[in-house]
Amino acid sequence: LDRWLINGNESATIPVDDRGFQYGDGLFETIAIRKGECRFMEAHLRRLAEGCRRLNIPVPRSELLLRDIQRATAGAAHGTAKIIITRGSGPRGYRPPPQAEPTRVVGFSATSIDNRIGGIRIRFCNTLIGRNRQLAGIKSLSRLEQVLARSEWNDADIEEGLMLNDKGEVVCGTMTNLFCTRDDVLLTPELSECGIRGVMREQTLVVAAALNIEVRETVISKRELLDVDDLFLTNSLTGAVSVAELDGHFYSPSAVTRKIRRGLCELGVEECAT
Amino acid sequence: LDRWLINGNESATIPVDDRGFQYGDGLFETIAIRKGECRFMEAHLRRLAEGCRRLNIPVPRSELLLRDIQRATAGAAHGTAKIIITRGSGPRGYRPPPQAEPTRVVGFSATSIDNRIGGIRIRFCNTLIGRNRQLAGIKSLSRLEQVLARSEWNDADIEEGLMLNDKGEVVCGTMTNLFCTRDDVLLTPELSECGIRGVMREQTLVVAAALNIEVRETVISKRELLDVDDLFLTNSLTGAVSVAELDGHFYSPSAVTRKIRRGLCELGVEECAT
Repeated sequence: LDRWLINGNESATIPVDDRGFQYGDGLFETIAIRKGECRFMEAHLRRLAEGCRRLNIPVPRSELLLRDIQRATAGAAHGTAKIIITRGSGPRGYRPPPQAEPTRVVGFSATSIDNRIGGIRIRFCNTLIGRNRQLAGIKSLSRLEQVLARSEWNDADIEEGLMLNDKGEVVCGTMTNLFCTRDDVLLTPELSECGIRGVMREQTLVVAAALNIEVRETVISKRELLDVDDLFLTNSLTGAVSVAELDGHFYSPSAVTRKIRRGLCELGVEECAT
Repeated sequence: LDRWLINGNESATIPVDDRGFQYGDGLFETIAIRKGECRFMEAHLRRLAEGCRRLNIPVPRSELLLRDIQRATAGAAHGTAKIIITRGSGPRGYRPPPQAEPTRVVGFSATSIDNRIGGIRIRFCNTLIGRNRQLAGIKSLSRLEQVLARSEWNDADIEEGLMLNDKGEVVCGTMTNLFCTRDDVLLTPELSECGIRGVMREQTLVVAAALNIEVRETVISKRELLDVDDLFLTNSLTGAVSVAELDGHFYSPSAVTRKIRRGLCELGVEECAT
């Protein structure tokens, strides 16, 4: 990223004994900056606070984060902000220090991903996603499974890979949540055992509810996925992106998916306009 | 730790875009320095190299690591060294950069843990350990499960907590491997799905083989654990430590355990002398 603030100070380094580095003991958020605003900032702050509570890390004050982002963006209207909160420095050992002083990192990059028009090609990953109810849903720094999954392919035409758990259930993409539609019903994997509850996933569910679209958060097997009407993937930075091809199966956006995309667009997700 | 070298340079900070910090994308080793030597260094280097291969991180040259440790210890005869290898800095996103330049961190602390004489008290943790065959065995930086498990208790009299997987199998302690004996057989959890293959665990198996002690790497349920002759826990820094009490069950070292401890002592694990 172009610019970093560490605990409010411009810096590009963190202490080597930070528990985020030593143990993946922290959380992060990736936020789209659009028209000078943090898109869905409340939802990001809510998930971050929920993650902090789950890990018993003191919740950072929203005003500080917003002030840092404002300073890091330095007036840029468009780009990507990243927040990292760790349990801070501590002595050796997994045991969290009783008086943790969290590290607050805010970064900004003016670059952003260009969405493909007309659907993306995706694949299945071999890397499985481990199940752990205590970590499910939150966006922790312990992300090695996603790193391994994303390293499985180099083909620039493949934009994303879907990850399964050891029960053969499809959970998510490496950096996206998965939705599919079948007979006018919106389906998405339930995430009580693994996966991250994405902010764009949440907004998609909000839009579906507002449009009276039936939603099922459910178990979806690999086989079932090849039998749906269409698929799309959500991510804070890209909105809801339709899948054109998965493993030789071709899809085009269903009426439900088009409605969802229009609804997201009305919520400010301009990436869903085309 | 008292002193750190980052890529061979004395420093206490790492770049904020290091993937070890951003994604837990790296590995570590904790090594006992005894009488001016790295104890079981070959075994540590072997596990580190195996971890690098599994994560597709270039294996660091042993000479560099040994030189760094020598410089970090600065002649100290006794203490703890830590090696951290990450995939290095990279652009945003889980995808590993094609030409990763790993970050090499070596730290040293003159302090070391004092072993309790006569057995320790331990407990069961509620935090489960997720199963993932691709990460099983290696000592990656994504250690949030251990952090959560270790945060479950503050009682200074409880030295360690045992972690189970979602099938109810006992896997390991938060920072130790588990052994138990029953009818002159040495039992230890098999680690194909989760847990870390500890260096002291490996040495314990070496000793058992040399002494013709029957060993079973097997599935051990929580219930079975309360029905064994005794338990001990292994860790590179503490050797093999007998468990005196687990959840109101009391144990004293079996003949097999005493033999193992004598064998480890002969291999240089002085902590097993008493």
